[in-house]
Amino acid sequence: MTDQKTAISPRRDEDFPEWYQQVVRVADLAENSDVRGCMVIKPWGYGIWEAMQRGLDRMFKETGHKNAYFPLFIPLSYLAKEAEHVEGFAKECAVVTHHRLESDGAGGLRPAPAAELAEPLVVRPTSETIIGATYAKWVQSYRDLPILINQWANVVRWEMRPRVFLRTTEFLWQEGHTAHETEAEAMAETEKMLEVYATFARDYMAVPVYPGEKTESERFPGAVRTLTIEAMVQDRKAIQAGTSHFLGQNFAKASGIQFLSRGNAQEFAWTTSWGVSTRLVGTAIMAHADDDGMIVPPRLAPTHVVVLPITPKPETRDAVLAAANALAGELRKQSFADTTVSVEVDARDLPGGTKNWEWIKKGAPVRIEIGPRDLEKGTVALSRRDKGVKEKEFLTMAEVVGQVAGILESIQTTLYQRALAYRDANTRGIDTKEEFYAFFTPQNAERPEIHGGFARSHWCGSAECEARVKEELKVTIRCIPFDAVAEEGACVVCGKASGKRVLWAKSY
Amino acid sequence: MTDQKTAISPRRDEDFPEWYQQVVRVADLAENSDVRGCMVIKPWGYGIWEAMQRGLDRMFKETGHKNAYFPLFIPLSYLAKEAEHVEGFAKECAVVTHHRLESDGAGGLRPAPAAELAEPLVVRPTSETIIGATYAKWVQSYRDLPILINQWANVVRWEMRPRVFLRTTEFLWQEGHTAHETEAEAMAETEKMLEVYATFARDYMAVPVYPGEKTESERFPGAVRTLTIEAMVQDRKAIQAGTSHFLGQNFAKASGIQFLSRGNAQEFAWTTSWGVSTRLVGTAIMAHADDDGMIVPPRLAPTHVVVLPITPKPETRDAVLAAANALAGELRKQSFADTTVSVEVDARDLPGGTKNWEWIKKGAPVRIEIGPRDLEKGTVALSRRDKGVKEKEFLTMAEVVGQVAGILESIQTTLYQRALAYRDANTRGIDTKEEFYAFFTPQNAERPEIHGGFARSHWCGSAECEARVKEELKVTIRCIPFDAVAEEGACVVCGKASGKRVLWAKSY
Repeated sequence: MTDQKTAISPRRDEDFPEWYQQVVRVADLAENSDVRGCMVIKPWGYGIWEAMQRGLDRMFKETGHKNAYFPLFIPLSYLAKEAEHVEGFAKECAVVTHHRLESDGAGGLRPAPAAELAEPLVVRPTSETIIGATYAKWVQSYRDLPILINQWANVVRWEMRPRVFLRTTEFLWQEGHTAHETEAEAMAETEKMLEVYATFARDYMAVPVYPGEKTESERFPGAVRTLTIEAMVQDRKAIQAGTSHFLGQNFAKASGIQFLSRGNAQEFAWTTSWGVSTRLVGTAIMAHADDDGMIVPPRLAPTHVVVLPITPKPETRDAVLAAANALAGELRKQSFADTTVSVEVDARDLPGGTKNWEWIKKGAPVRIEIGPRDLEKGTVALSRRDKGVKEKEFLTMAEVVGQVAGILESIQTTLYQRALAYRDANTRGIDTKEEFYAFFTPQNAERPEIHGGFARSHWCGSAECEARVKEELKVTIRCIPFDAVAEEGACVVCGKASGKRVLWAKSY
Repeated sequence: MTDQKTAISPRRDEDFPEWYQQVVRVADLAENSDVRGCMVIKPWGYGIWEAMQRGLDRMFKETGHKNAYFPLFIPLSYLAKEAEHVEGFAKECAVVTHHRLESDGAGGLRPAPAAELAEPLVVRPTSETIIGATYAKWVQSYRDLPILINQWANVVRWEMRPRVFLRTTEFLWQEGHTAHETEAEAMAETEKMLEVYATFARDYMAVPVYPGEKTESERFPGAVRTLTIEAMVQDRKAIQAGTSHFLGQNFAKASGIQFLSRGNAQEFAWTTSWGVSTRLVGTAIMAHADDDGMIVPPRLAPTHVVVLPITPKPETRDAVLAAANALAGELRKQSFADTTVSVEVDARDLPGGTKNWEWIKKGAPVRIEIGPRDLEKGTVALSRRDKGVKEKEFLTMAEVVGQVAGILESIQTTLYQRALAYRDANTRGIDTKEEFYAFFTPQNAERPEIHGGFARSHWCGSAECEARVKEELKVTIRCIPFDAVAEEGACVVCGKASGKRVLWAKSY
């Protein structure tokens, strides 16, 4: 503990998991519901998700995809079709067994025994199986390929240890599902969509990522190859921020997606799937928030600029409100990135300091205070959330209007550079087992303080070494990075020969 | 049957329900899934829903609402809280009873008996109860009001007789849920949102509606007042296209939404809810499609203009494709309504006639054919979907670019005027029981041909008269229209005195 007073208690360096929960709470992003594991996403948190949706949806459409919608429910028998998929996925699911309620005779309700389903339905944990069954009907000839479809949907995977945004029983996501004529085309699609995610993480989320490939043990159940982007958050752990799967012909065979080829033969299609979820909101929080609350990257902000009229006296109130609204009107005409500047005038009848702190905690990129004295001087006080909470810059209204887009761009860049510097400062090339184990071991065993980071270390390729490190240190290979160069080395676990470094970390 | 050949068989006037299914099929809008009652919304149909979402979402935000997200699952006990609501709603629901699957020992899966939930969960049929429980936590003082929130979500109501878009077990919708300090404010909100729906129906869907209030028997379960917009489709039946409910304090009392008032007393909030669903896609189909397929109003069209390159000879192919793409590029720079013109170049290697008919059936507003001879003449052939399928207008490319926004606007207007004329031609002021019964009785009892329409007739106000007409004719009071004028008359059923006319019709 220090004397420095912050809005969030505990601070990040004191108790990161609790700090995270507090940020979610004070920034008004989400809360737990009475349904275990299911969250309520509040307007400010949902607004961030909407900004993510807009950005991603545009990128999906620019790469030739269209949206569609498939059923929430999956017949139980579908899940049994792809054995490996079932093994990995199908267990912790919400199962619908009845389609009607009836009075229980004691003022309550119960599932009506007469309305038990002949075949139970599973609430989709992911839609590969039901989409596969649908594509099997749509595809007859090579002329019907490729199918390039995305779905925005809710999915359910029963969680025993839920954590808001990061691991929830119900979450929101998008799942792309494509089918192709050739292996090469499907693999190119898998790579293209990972690239879309990496671009999105960098340009919208202000989060640098390592793109790479998962090892066999970390692959999506049923996939031939799983590509991933891995981000570092402020406790130096990794978070998987998006995955793109090359499914080979596995799901096509399980679902019967067959087509008459150009060579007049019946062939199975090559499929892919790729997705990101509301977990990205959690990623943005852990990557950017500080001890005063959330900091929303401008390109994800539901509101870019908050105008705070200061109205201490009734006689100047109207003039201040009029000036605040006029300024907001001018700001809304400005463009930022691919949208217009969004502005909220917070004219609530609350003390100025209370409102100011609310918006600091929510992490609105820019706050503008405007009071009677500012009106006299013709200036306003502008604060950027990427700078100290007390820092103010005094600008004329014309200056604010002229500079707002540049200021937002500058905040976006600052957040990215800050995250990049943090990641790079905590990424280390480690060549010995001793250093590797020390890197990932807390100094003080009683307090799980922030430690470790990303280790770029050699790996012999054996599942045994991977499993051993996972068991002993809770460290996994996050990916085999695409940028890994061929280099002679020794496996950091067993010492056997290795041709390149992989990325190791503790993770969410 | 006539000699005129149409793309859809049967025609509307032959078998309206079957015609509807065929339009959905040939226009590639949606299909039934293997899960009974659940549909797959295909890209063209989902694109219409996305356009609806964009338009409505903008209007919701302009009226001060924000989006949020609440859990898919509702604890069974929540549904028992509001007695009237349960009675009306809670019966045909999907009930989740288990949270894990296990092997059944025979290669299949079954719900794990050990993972039975202590309290079953209901897949939301609507979210009043769970949102009410959440608002109860958020609201402490009058300063926390109003709460103006909307949710885009999927909901489930088990359907025994499903019909794609119109009545499906799972459907997509938005549900607005607001809480207010005073009765007057909540009632104003209820009216404002109905007005938003009426504007949306007219300006985006090109569908005229009667706004009005439901009678007691047709109210939403638990509501004090239900407002509705009622549209007529091409079999002269009514379809409820949107509802807005004033819930009084009923749900606030059931959920405990209480606040400390300005007068320092504990009071219950006044709440509203309002929603429209993917049923609107069905409404647009039944309102506008013809015997050649769908006709999408331009403001709902996923693609405004389809460019069809005609490439009969290999040697002119490149030049034609280049011209088609250049034209598309210019068109995309044009604005229409609140968006840019969306253009698809259909360069698939299929016969020109096949592609042209596909787009006629899908109902793209404008088709442009461009072939080698057009290039020589410097013109293209433009067809509007609101005119005869063989009609073409020859324009220079510059003319097309200059006129495209106006053409789309003109199609939008034509569709609205056509729907309005159809509705008005089939709306009749009826004053006698004899005429009323004749109006709603098919002439040929063996074939349910299109008959009836909207009857504006007097009603004494009794539930008995309402019930009698419903039983004998399957006709209901669609609403008490806001534009009904005070007028002395006699109830069309019992002859008793009545002060105004109400709107009667058969309905979906």
